[in-house]
Amino acid sequence: MAEPKTNEFMEKIVSLCKRRGFVFQSSEIYGGINGFWDYGPLGAELKRNVKDLWWRSMTRLRDDIAGLEATIIMHPKIWEASGHIATFTDPMVDCKTCKGRFRADQVSEIPCPQRPSKTVSECAGEKTEPRPFNLMFKTHVGPVEGDENVAYLRPETAQAIFAQFKNVLEVSRQKVPFGIAQIGKAFRNEVTPRNFTFRSREFEQMELEFFIKPDEIVEKLNGSVAKLDSSTDLSQARADWGWEVWHKYWVEQRIRWYESIGLPRASLEEYWQKKDELAHYAKATVDILYKFPFGTQELEGIAARGDFDLTQHQKHSGRSMEYFDEEAKSKYIPHVIEPSAGVDRLILALICNAYQEEPVTDEKGNTETRIVLRFHPRVAPVKVGIFPLLKNKPELVQKALQVRDILRPHMNVFYDEAGAIGRRYRRQDEAGTPFGITIDFDTLGEGGPERVDTVTLRDRDSMRQERVSISELLPKLLQQIQ
Amino acid sequence: MAEPKTNEFMEKIVSLCKRRGFVFQSSEIYGGINGFWDYGPLGAELKRNVKDLWWRSMTRLRDDIAGLEATIIMHPKIWEASGHIATFTDPMVDCKTCKGRFRADQVSEIPCPQRPSKTVSECAGEKTEPRPFNLMFKTHVGPVEGDENVAYLRPETAQAIFAQFKNVLEVSRQKVPFGIAQIGKAFRNEVTPRNFTFRSREFEQMELEFFIKPDEIVEKLNGSVAKLDSSTDLSQARADWGWEVWHKYWVEQRIRWYESIGLPRASLEEYWQKKDELAHYAKATVDILYKFPFGTQELEGIAARGDFDLTQHQKHSGRSMEYFDEEAKSKYIPHVIEPSAGVDRLILALICNAYQEEPVTDEKGNTETRIVLRFHPRVAPVKVGIFPLLKNKPELVQKALQVRDILRPHMNVFYDEAGAIGRRYRRQDEAGTPFGITIDFDTLGEGGPERVDTVTLRDRDSMRQERVSISELLPKLLQQIQ
Repeated sequence: MAEPKTNEFMEKIVSLCKRRGFVFQSSEIYGGINGFWDYGPLGAELKRNVKDLWWRSMTRLRDDIAGLEATIIMHPKIWEASGHIATFTDPMVDCKTCKGRFRADQVSEIPCPQRPSKTVSECAGEKTEPRPFNLMFKTHVGPVEGDENVAYLRPETAQAIFAQFKNVLEVSRQKVPFGIAQIGKAFRNEVTPRNFTFRSREFEQMELEFFIKPDEIVEKLNGSVAKLDSSTDLSQARADWGWEVWHKYWVEQRIRWYESIGLPRASLEEYWQKKDELAHYAKATVDILYKFPFGTQELEGIAARGDFDLTQHQKHSGRSMEYFDEEAKSKYIPHVIEPSAGVDRLILALICNAYQEEPVTDEKGNTETRIVLRFHPRVAPVKVGIFPLLKNKPELVQKALQVRDILRPHMNVFYDEAGAIGRRYRRQDEAGTPFGITIDFDTLGEGGPERVDTVTLRDRDSMRQERVSISELLPKLLQQIQ
Repeated sequence: MAEPKTNEFMEKIVSLCKRRGFVFQSSEIYGGINGFWDYGPLGAELKRNVKDLWWRSMTRLRDDIAGLEATIIMHPKIWEASGHIATFTDPMVDCKTCKGRFRADQVSEIPCPQRPSKTVSECAGEKTEPRPFNLMFKTHVGPVEGDENVAYLRPETAQAIFAQFKNVLEVSRQKVPFGIAQIGKAFRNEVTPRNFTFRSREFEQMELEFFIKPDEIVEKLNGSVAKLDSSTDLSQARADWGWEVWHKYWVEQRIRWYESIGLPRASLEEYWQKKDELAHYAKATVDILYKFPFGTQELEGIAARGDFDLTQHQKHSGRSMEYFDEEAKSKYIPHVIEPSAGVDRLILALICNAYQEEPVTDEKGNTETRIVLRFHPRVAPVKVGIFPLLKNKPELVQKALQVRDILRPHMNVFYDEAGAIGRRYRRQDEAGTPFGITIDFDTLGEGGPERVDTVTLRDRDSMRQERVSISELLPKLLQQIQ
C-alpha cells in the first residue's frame, strides 16, 4: 500500500482535495488569501469526525478530563504572562530601498522584488539590522485604536486552559491528577505559509493540559517515584507515577489514538527532543511525526512543561494557582503534561495516508486507474453510498430511499442515482466512502424469493460484494464504523 | 413551570452558570475582557450538543444541504462586496476634551468620564460630528502593517458561503434548490456588549444559505407559482414553490427544530419585519424571538435575500455566479433564503428556559429549595449520573463502574461517589442531568434474588425512581436521549 510520497504525489492530493471538495483556497474568487484554507463538504465532515473522536477519547471516555471552550480573543496580559509578546517572534530585515520586509534567515534565498536576478542579501538596497516581528495577529477591542486597547488572536489554545485552571478545578470536582481539554482555532501570522494546509495562518488545535503532582509530593506520599523503563506498565495509572511516567503514558496514549483513526504505526515517528532543543521550561518533549510527501513533520508535540505556565499566570495575575492536596496536606502548583495536536495537519496526513491509485479492470476488460481514499470507517466523511441500480424504475428508487431512511439517523449516507453504477462506485471510492449499497431487481424479488429485500453491500477496499438482507444492514454497518 | 423572567432571575442564571461551570468570564484572573465569555465543562458540552443537532438536522438528515467550514479571516474584498466595509457601522462622537469616544445615540445617557454627574451631551467638552465606526475587528496579514494588508475578522459566517457557492455546487452534485450550511465563530466590535452572553464580541453562528430558483423560472417551468396561504402544505417541497413558500417553509422548519431541543412554542415569538424595517435587499425577514428575562429578543433571523449577495460577489470578483438550470435550459443567479442563528444566545435561552426552583421535602421532613435545569435530554451536557450508594464498599463501587463502562461509549456519563446520595442527586439536578442511577445493596443481591443486578433509575423532573435491570439500562436510556 506504500505510495511514493513525492511532490508529484502532493500535487495529486491538492488536486483531489479541490476536485472532490475536501479543501478549497479561502476567498478563491478574489484570488485567494495566502495561508488560509476552507473545508468543503467532505473536508468539513472529515474534520468534524476527527474532532469528535478526539473529544470523545479525552472527555467522554475518561473520568479525569474536563472540557473547556474559551474565546480566541483574550486579555492581552495572558500573552505577557506566557511569554508570547516578548518571544513569539521571527527576526525580520527591512530593505530601505524597496521597502520590502524579509525573514532574516531567508535573505540569501528570496529574490529581490526589484531585481529578481539577485537575492535580497546580494542586492544593493540598504538593509536594517534584523528586528523581531511578532507572529501574533493584532487587533483592537472597543472603538478606540489605542495601545491600551490592543488584543491578539490567540496563537495557541493552551493558555486559556491555564488561565481558567482554578475555575475548572472548582466546578468539575476533579482532583490532581486531572486534565482540561480544548479544541479551537488559533492564528499565527506566518511569514511564509507553506505545504498546503500544513502550515497555515489560521488553524485548529486539540490541546490537553494534564495536571499532575510534583515529583516531591509523589515521593512524600509514596516513599518513592516510579522509574520509567521498558518494563513500566502504562495500562493503569498509579499513585507513584512522577512526571516521567506520566509523560510516557501520554505519548503512548496519543500514538494509540492515531492508530485508532487509521494512521499505521509505520507512518509515524516518535522524536524525543535533545536537551539543547528543549524550550527552557520543558523537561522533555516528544514530537509525533508523520511521513508527509514533503518530509517527516510534526503532527503533535507532547511536552512536560513543569509548573512554568501556572507559575507565570500566578505571577502576572496576582491570583493563586495553587492546589490544596488533601492527601498530601499541602499546597502546590501542579505540573503539567501537554499533548498538543494540530487538526489541519492531521486531516492532511489522513488524506495522504488514505490516497491510493490502483489499476482495475472494468466489465469490458479495459484497465483503468482507480483512485481510492482508504479512510478508516470511523473518520470517513460518508459512511455508505446508496444506489438504486436504475433511476427510472420507481420501485428501485423507492426501495433505495427506504434503505436510506433506515441508515440515515445513525450515519452519514450519500444517496446517488445518477450514472452507471460503476461510475457511482468510483465517485464514492474517491470520497473515501467505505461501503456501497446497491438496490437491484433481486431486491424486488426478481432473483427468487430467497433474495427478496436483500441488497449488494460493496466493500471499498476489496471491491468485494456480498448479498445482505436489508434488516441486517444497520447492525452490520454500525459495528464497522464505530 | 413559568418562572418570572426578571433581572433577579437573570442574576440567578449568571450565578448558576459560573458556579456550575457553564460560563466563565474570559480571562477572569486578569479582570476579564468586556464582551468575551468562555464555556466551562458543562457549557462546552451543551454547546457541542446543540451544534451537533443543528448540523445533523441540516446536513446528515437531508440530501439537499452540503456543509462548509471556511476561515474567519478572508480576503477583504469579500466585505467590500457584501457592503460591510461601507455600512456595517455605528455613528460615534469624539470628545476633544476627554478624548473619549461614544455612540452618538447614547451621548445623552452615558456619564462624562471626567464629570460623571453630567452626561456626555451635557458636559462642556467640544464634540466632533458623528462619524461612522466600523464594527469589524481589523488586523493585518503578513509582516507589514500597511493598508494593503488589512484584513477583518468575519462579522458573520454567511459571506463565505456565497464566496464558495460555485466550488460547493461543483463538488456536491447538487441542483437548485439546495443549501450550504456552516457553523463557526464571528466577531463584532460592539461598542456596548450586554445581557451576559446575549450580545458579545466573539460569538458563534449556525447559518444556512438555501438557494432557490427565481420565481420567473418557477413560473416558466410550472406555469404558475404556488401561493402562500393558510392551506399551503409545507411538509413536502414542490416544484412550483416560489420564494414566499420556501421562506415560510424554513420559518416552520426552524421553529420545529427549536421545539425539538426543548424550547416550547409558547416561549418563542415569530416576528415578521415590516416593510420599512427590511434591509434594502430583503424581500421578507422573520425573526424568531425568545422571551429572555431582559426582554423578548432575537434567536434567529430568516431572510429572503433575493439574489443580492451572489450578484454582489459576481460584480466584485468578476467571476460568474450563474447556475445553469438543465430543466429550464437557462442560466440565472439563484435566490436565497437565509436562516441565521446565534449559538450563544440559544445556549442562554436553553439555560433560562430550563432553570427552575422548587420546594422539596427531604427525608427528615425539612423543606429546601431544589434548583433544577430541565434540559431536554437531547441537549443535556451529562445524560446520566452514576452513583454507588457508599464509596467505601468495594462491591458497590465495582458494580457502579461496570454500569458506567456499559453506558459510557454511548452517552456522556458522570460518575460520582462522594457525599450523601441526596446531595449527589441535587448536584446533577443543577447540571441538568436527566437521569440518575444508584447502585445499592439490592443490586448486590441483599434485597432478594429478584432484585440482583437491578438499580434505581431516577428521573430528574419527577424525582420518581424505578427499579431497572442493568441489562435494560442502555436501550431504555438511548431511547430517551435521542
